[in-house]
Amino acid sequence: MPELAYRPAIAADLPFMVALIAADDVSGIDMDGWEPATAPRYEAALAAIDADPNQALYIAELDGAPVGTVQLTFIPGIMRRGMWRGLIESVHIAPEHRNKGLGSAMMRWAIERCRARGCGLVQLTSNKKRTDAHRFYRALGFNQSHEGFKLFL
Amino acid sequence: MPELAYRPAIAADLPFMVALIAADDVSGIDMDGWEPATAPRYEAALAAIDADPNQALYIAELDGAPVGTVQLTFIPGIMRRGMWRGLIESVHIAPEHRNKGLGSAMMRWAIERCRARGCGLVQLTSNKKRTDAHRFYRALGFNQSHEGFKLFL
Repeated sequence: MPELAYRPAIAADLPFMVALIAADDVSGIDMDGWEPATAPRYEAALAAIDADPNQALYIAELDGAPVGTVQLTFIPGIMRRGMWRGLIESVHIAPEHRNKGLGSAMMRWAIERCRARGCGLVQLTSNKKRTDAHRFYRALGFNQSHEGFKLFL
Repeated sequence: MPELAYRPAIAADLPFMVALIAADDVSGIDMDGWEPATAPRYEAALAAIDADPNQALYIAELDGAPVGTVQLTFIPGIMRRGMWRGLIESVHIAPEHRNKGLGSAMMRWAIERCRARGCGLVQLTSNKKRTDAHRFYRALGFNQSHEGFKLFL
């Protein structure tokens, strides 16, 4: 199995990340693209992530080249004696690197990051259309126990 | 309709919040209780929420007495041109105050808080067993578009 390396995303990664999002056939909505007009908004989002120690956006690299992304949010809560939870968002692997086990390796790494940060629970949502992804998350040990609700404002 | 008031939760609210969680018939697991041995963990969780400007835990009050809680996490992200999302957790109304429309009022208030913070999306998950809650969230305008996955560590 090829070995991934992980590091925090930097501004120079934004074109790669935006292209990955734009290529997504489920969540992509012809809204994302790296252009002079949109770049400041993406840069502001990355700066906001960097400014909050409970947010982290990572690049997964293979042989020194970016192949994937994963974002973690660490959330303190009262339930279960003050349990922290880790929220996983923005799980993407570049199309040409899929079906090699990289997504699974990246997810296991993300789960370990949450454990290392003291989380008692890791959670994520996946569009109901992504039935392959659901099988993937179940195989990683996730319990498909919840309904996920979204409201665009 | 009785009018709710909202304020950030403080340490003195912890026994109320822990009792609400412990009384929950779906997520309650005989783990939560306000005792000398557990109090420091709840206090630490509240302190962690207070320390992060992207976390907020609120008490809903009716005539000056706490009747509910809601927690918001504001999450910057790259998708949709750097869209922020608001995550809603810990939605609870005290049993004796249910079925009066208070939960709906509190949720509408929480959604407006997310909008005021610049979020383009509000999201939450609800246990598949809570079919009444699913109807409630759909009535508030949420789209039941995702599967929710949880992994306890």
